[in-house]
Amino acid sequence: MTSPRPLRRTPTYRRRADQTTMRRTNLSLVLRHLREGGPAPRARIATGTGLNKATVSSLVAELIRRGLVTDGAVDRSGAVGRPGRVVELAGRGICGVGVEVNVDYLCVLAIDLRDDVLYERRRALDVTALPADLVLDEVASLVADAYAELARLDAVPAGVTVAVPGTVDAEAGTVGVAANLRWRDYGVVHALVERLGRADVPVSAGNDANLSALAEHAMGAAAGTAELVCLVGSAGVGCGVVSGGRLLRGDTGFAGEIGHTPLDPHGRPCGCGRRGCWETTVGLRGLLRLATGPGDPLRDPALDLAARLATLLERAESGDRRTLDALAQLGTAVGVGAGILVNLVNPRVLVVGGYFAAFTPYLHDALMAELRSRVVAPDAAGCRVVASTLGFTAAARGGAHVALERVLHDPSLVSRTRSAEVLA
Amino acid sequence: MTSPRPLRRTPTYRRRADQTTMRRTNLSLVLRHLREGGPAPRARIATGTGLNKATVSSLVAELIRRGLVTDGAVDRSGAVGRPGRVVELAGRGICGVGVEVNVDYLCVLAIDLRDDVLYERRRALDVTALPADLVLDEVASLVADAYAELARLDAVPAGVTVAVPGTVDAEAGTVGVAANLRWRDYGVVHALVERLGRADVPVSAGNDANLSALAEHAMGAAAGTAELVCLVGSAGVGCGVVSGGRLLRGDTGFAGEIGHTPLDPHGRPCGCGRRGCWETTVGLRGLLRLATGPGDPLRDPALDLAARLATLLERAESGDRRTLDALAQLGTAVGVGAGILVNLVNPRVLVVGGYFAAFTPYLHDALMAELRSRVVAPDAAGCRVVASTLGFTAAARGGAHVALERVLHDPSLVSRTRSAEVLA
Repeated sequence: MTSPRPLRRTPTYRRRADQTTMRRTNLSLVLRHLREGGPAPRARIATGTGLNKATVSSLVAELIRRGLVTDGAVDRSGAVGRPGRVVELAGRGICGVGVEVNVDYLCVLAIDLRDDVLYERRRALDVTALPADLVLDEVASLVADAYAELARLDAVPAGVTVAVPGTVDAEAGTVGVAANLRWRDYGVVHALVERLGRADVPVSAGNDANLSALAEHAMGAAAGTAELVCLVGSAGVGCGVVSGGRLLRGDTGFAGEIGHTPLDPHGRPCGCGRRGCWETTVGLRGLLRLATGPGDPLRDPALDLAARLATLLERAESGDRRTLDALAQLGTAVGVGAGILVNLVNPRVLVVGGYFAAFTPYLHDALMAELRSRVVAPDAAGCRVVASTLGFTAAARGGAHVALERVLHDPSLVSRTRSAEVLA
Repeated sequence: MTSPRPLRRTPTYRRRADQTTMRRTNLSLVLRHLREGGPAPRARIATGTGLNKATVSSLVAELIRRGLVTDGAVDRSGAVGRPGRVVELAGRGICGVGVEVNVDYLCVLAIDLRDDVLYERRRALDVTALPADLVLDEVASLVADAYAELARLDAVPAGVTVAVPGTVDAEAGTVGVAANLRWRDYGVVHALVERLGRADVPVSAGNDANLSALAEHAMGAAAGTAELVCLVGSAGVGCGVVSGGRLLRGDTGFAGEIGHTPLDPHGRPCGCGRRGCWETTVGLRGLLRLATGPGDPLRDPALDLAARLATLLERAESGDRRTLDALAQLGTAVGVGAGILVNLVNPRVLVVGGYFAAFTPYLHDALMAELRSRVVAPDAAGCRVVASTLGFTAAARGGAHVALERVLHDPSLVSRTRSAEVLA
């Protein structure tokens, strides 16, 4: 029954591959440690990552060579031993680019490893009035401008992620349905790659509310909250759920569709063909219908959204009764849908973003009252409602964040020569 | 600036503790590996867990001594080397006990490490007609019966988990609101512990739909599906969301409340004081209202629920028009709420459990049609709807599963003498 046991030796090429993989994993580990925990001396990186000090020194040296981290101030926090310098993420250098396509604007934004914004441009555009391909011409021209400016800053884009208010098949790079943009089955990634002609910079796409949730979790007012829901008001309303510190994507990446929750069979007609969807009351048009009369310039989609909202905010601040009533009604309407989310997902924090954010002081009380009355667990299950501090940049920031993930996952993609970074 | 570096030695007691912890972790690792992957020879356990063969042999020997695993059949699958025996989880021995308190029945069930059911009893009871303390008297008497029978089977309960249709504060062991039971702020865990008088068997509590989702993920028709939603129909309707293979509990464990989703401001009055909550149409009373006239014996809550539903199913099978129409309407109504869930969470599988399960053949088409028309992503985002095969035992099974977790987490809790297991 016994037979000679075969000699098993892992072939050398396999071991090499494994060592490369291990090195890459450890480079990534150090980089993420600095990104999440802030600047730290080598000894603290060793403790925090479980790597030994010699390995950390070697990894840090490599990350410095690749331009991803730098030696910063002398660390005097440890009383004992030779004081060393803290290692910190390099500013500028490598950056992620996020693009948001929304109903009435485009936004392009770049952040570096420190989450500092290197570049930001916004353009008012009535996206629904144009075929998707013409919209992408505009997007490509904005991104090309961004590339030019980033090159002047000696910063290198690691990738671009486009945020779209609709269902996005991330793998195929296509938008299934973005009703408010009037897009259907549109290959947005291919369209942008074609126009940019930069094979070295990968392009991806994602749902705007999901990307906003990632941005809120990474760098927003409730950053680091493991159980967080981000609710984004624009033409429609979308949401992103972070649970256990990770984005709930669902089986095919379509999670977070909340706008068409049917709240009233006799309600207003919705763009989807049904009546009484939540977004008919809380979408931007819902607020404008309540807050403005016909002919009010605020209803003109060709005007910059930020400017229109600023005017509405001024009216609220000046105590305009119609505006204040409209905002209280909006708060209640937001509370109805938010109650569904809080009952189902039980977040610690509900971040209200998009156009809701600017009006939060006027929405908050009505929203909380509705939430408290609708959430089954007492006191709205302890959920806090906070306004996004990222405003209309959240989705683009989330996109930039995702684009940077490529480098965080594999820092060895970046090869640095003194004056310019090159992505392998 | 340099000072002598202190000698740092980990004190012995610390190392001992660490070795104990490591041993415990590794025992747990082997046990979970067998539970998830099925019986395996030692060599395969070593490969699967990353532990070396000598360590696995020693761990398996300890698990055998503790009565948690046994040596099974000779493994002939590996062509090379001396054939060994496969190691498999021990049947009977240690078990978890789950209890479900629902509106019109109690259920007690015990499963062993193999997920085999060792014990199951159900008692029809009009829970809403009794004060909570009297209900707990009944529960305790059922659990005591279970203990006696388990003792005869030479099986030892590792813990008890009580499933309740309401918000459960797992840490405090209290039910916040279980509207359909008419319980509020009830210390269910304390009440049961007091009545059982068994300090050696820990008691916990959880939401019924969340526990059902755990059971479906562990041992149901869609077991192992990482993105799964379980929808449970009873007097009300609850749900549990599994995402990335883990239960979405939310910040305070209150996730999964879906029954009071407001679908129609002019709808039927709900027990919660509002109108048009989803469960007014899909709760059991909703179906009985559609399917039966006044005076129909099926409306009598004192009759066993299973028997009533069996009668309704017979009527459907015999082609009774009123019943079939009612079930089609129910399918549509379930589809409306299921659409909200699928849009928000994007599961791969929606398991319909509780009383929905038995009727799935009659609900399925109407449910899918509604889902397809309401889910924003095409073809209901690829979501499959399957009937639970666990029927009315899902919540109790989930409870038993959770009760067993204690042993899976720390197998060294179990110390075995030949004829009886003792939990430390």
